[in-house]
Amino acid sequence: MTSPPTPHLFDPEIQQALDLAGIFVFAISGALLAVRKNLDVFGMVVLAEATGLGGGVIRDLIIGAVPPAAFTNLGYFLTPLLAAGLVFFLHPQVERITRAVMVVDAAGLGLFCVTGTTKAHAYHLDLTASATLGVVSAVGGGVIRDVLAQEVPSLLRWDRDLYAVPAMVGAAIVALLFHFHAFTGVGGGIAALVTFVMRLLAMRYGWHGPRAWRRRSARAEVAQEI
Amino acid sequence: MTSPPTPHLFDPEIQQALDLAGIFVFAISGALLAVRKNLDVFGMVVLAEATGLGGGVIRDLIIGAVPPAAFTNLGYFLTPLLAAGLVFFLHPQVERITRAVMVVDAAGLGLFCVTGTTKAHAYHLDLTASATLGVVSAVGGGVIRDVLAQEVPSLLRWDRDLYAVPAMVGAAIVALLFHFHAFTGVGGGIAALVTFVMRLLAMRYGWHGPRAWRRRSARAEVAQEI
Amino acid sequence: MTSPPTPHLFDPEIQQALDLAGIFVFAISGALLAVRKNLDVFGMVVLAEATGLGGGVIRDLIIGAVPPAAFTNLGYFLTPLLAAGLVFFLHPQVERITRAVMVVDAAGLGLFCVTGTTKAHAYHLDLTASATLGVVSAVGGGVIRDVLAQEVPSLLRWDRDLYAVPAMVGAAIVALLFHFHAFTGVGGGIAALVTFVMRLLAMRYGWHGPRAWRRRSARAEVAQEI
Repeated sequence: MTSPPTPHLFDPEIQQALDLAGIFVFAISGALLAVRKNLDVFGMVVLAEATGLGGGVIRDLIIGAVPPAAFTNLGYFLTPLLAAGLVFFLHPQVERITRAVMVVDAAGLGLFCVTGTTKAHAYHLDLTASATLGVVSAVGGGVIRDVLAQEVPSLLRWDRDLYAVPAMVGAAIVALLFHFHAFTGVGGGIAALVTFVMRLLAMRYGWHGPRAWRRRSARAEVAQEI
Repeated sequence: MTSPPTPHLFDPEIQQALDLAGIFVFAISGALLAVRKNLDVFGMVVLAEATGLGGGVIRDLIIGAVPPAAFTNLGYFLTPLLAAGLVFFLHPQVERITRAVMVVDAAGLGLFCVTGTTKAHAYHLDLTASATLGVVSAVGGGVIRDVLAQEVPSLLRWDRDLYAVPAMVGAAIVALLFHFHAFTGVGGGIAALVTFVMRLLAMRYGWHGPRAWRRRSARAEVAQEI
Repeated sequence: MTSPPTPHLFDPEIQQALDLAGIFVFAISGALLAVRKNLDVFGMVVLAEATGLGGGVIRDLIIGAVPPAAFTNLGYFLTPLLAAGLVFFLHPQVERITRAVMVVDAAGLGLFCVTGTTKAHAYHLDLTASATLGVVSAVGGGVIRDVLAQEVPSLLRWDRDLYAVPAMVGAAIVALLFHFHAFTGVGGGIAALVTFVMRLLAMRYGWHGPRAWRRRSARAEVAQEI
C-alpha cells in the first residue's frame, strides 16, 4: 500500500517550518489553558501535544494516512514540548503577549486549513470532504484541548469571535481552486491569507455568528414545561 | 486493498433513504442541543454533523473502512446541514414536536444498530465485535454530541429512559442470525423493528436500568471518608 | 497487507493473562466511577469497556493495526463485562479494597506502557513515537473514562499523585533498550517493574508534578484584567 506523496504548498523546507510554527502556537494555547486550569507540568505537556497535533491526527486517521504524520516526524513531537517548556518557565511573559499569540494562532489557522484540505485531496477524497478535513485539521486540536480541560469548546461558543468560519472560507477557496484545476502554491497562500485576515478582523471587530431565530420564545416554552 | 462491498439490508436506494433519514433525526437532536446550550449557527452545524455522522465514523475507523462513508458520500455530509438549517429557522416549531423527533430517533437507533452490525460483519469482524460496533454506530454520535456540549452522555445517565439497551438487543439479534446463517433483509428489518418498539416502550413506560446493589450504604461509607 | 506479529514480552499465554489482568483492573476503576456518578448498570458496562480497552484501541488505530485487538479477541471484550458485574453486585466490598485495586492498577500501568511501546515498535514506528504510544496505551483508557463521566482527567490534575510520569519512564526505558538492540523479555519486565514501583512510591509519598513558575503573579495579572 503506497501512500500518495504528502502535498506541499511551498518548498518542502519552508512548508515544514510553517507547519512547526503553527503547531507551536497551537501548543502554546494548550499549555496556557493548562496553567489556567491549575494543571501541573505534565498536564501542560499533554495539553500542548494534544492541541498542537490533535487536528492533524484526526485528519490522518480519517484519510487512512497511518501512522499519522505526528508520529513519523520527530519535529512535530518535540515542538509542543518546547511550547510547554516555554510556558512553564515564562508563563507571565507569555500571558502578557496573549494578543500576539492569537495573531500567530490566526496564521496557524490559515495555514492548517489549506494544508489539511490539500493533503486530504491528495488522498483522493472528494472536494467537500477535503475541505471538511481541512477545517478539522485547523480546529480539531483546539476542540480536543477544551474537551480534555472540561470546557465547552471555544469553537462552539456564541460569545467568542468567529474561529471556524475563516477556516471554512479558506478550505472552500482551496476546494474551488482544485475544482477548476487552478490550485497552485500562490493560490494556496492566498487562501491561507484570506483566512488569516478574516480571523484578525473577527477578533478586531468582535464578529459573532447568529443564534437560532426566535430562540427566546422557544426558551420560554421550555421553561413552562419545566 | 479492495474493500468488501457495503452490505445492504434492503434495496440500495431504500437503504440510502433510510440511512439519510436516521442521520437527519440524529442531527436534529444535535442542533437542538446546540440551541439549548446557546451556541451560534456554526456550533449548530458542528453538533449536527458530529451527532449525525459520529457513530458511523468511529465504526468505520475501527473496521478499517477508510475514508469513512461519511466522507465519501456527499448526501451524508449535506443531511446534517439541512437539519441544522431547519432548527435554525424553525426552532420553536421543532421543539414543539420533540416527541415526534424522538420517535424518528428511535427508528434511526433501530436502523443503525442493524446496519452497523451488518457492515462490521462484512469486514470480517467476529459476531461479538460486530454487534458491539452496531451499538457504537447507533449511539456513538449522541455520545460525541454530549461530550462536545459538556454534558454527561445521556446514554449513561440513570435518570434517562433506556437507550443503549434496545440497540444492544437489535444488534444481538442480527449477530445471532449471522451465527445461524439465517440473516436476510427481513430478519434485519425485524431486528430494527424490535429495537424501535423496545425504545418506544422504554420512553412510554419510563424504563430505567438498575443501579449498583447496596449503593446507598456504599455512598455513606464514602461520605464518612470525606 | 500482512500485519507484523503481535510482540510478546513473555510466553504468549502468560502475556495474555497479564493483559487481561490489566484490562480487568482498569475496567474496575471505570465501573467504580460509574457508581460514584450514579450511572446505571449499562453506564457501568460502557465505562468499564471504555476504560479497559480505550488506550489500546487508540494505539491500534494510530499504528494502523485495524481492527484493534480489542475487537478481535473475545476475552478482551468479556473482561470489562466481568469487572462491571463484580462492581454491580459487590460495590461496597470493592470500594473497601480501593487501595488494593490501585496497586493492581499500578501493575497494569507498568505492563501496558511496556507492551504498548513494544507493539508500536513492531509496527515500525520510531522510538519516540513508540514510547508515546506506550504511554497512550497505559493512560488513554482513564482519560476516556474521565471525559465520558465529565471529570477533568485525573491524569491531568495537579492534586493527584503522579500517574503518567511512571508510564513515561517505563516506556522510555523500553525505547532505550530497543535503541541499543538490548530489548529482551527480562528488560521489558524490569521496565514494567520500575513503572510499578515508581507509581506505588508516588501514591505512598504523594508525589506531585510542579506547576508553572510564578503562576501566582500571573494569575493576579489575569484577575486585574477581569
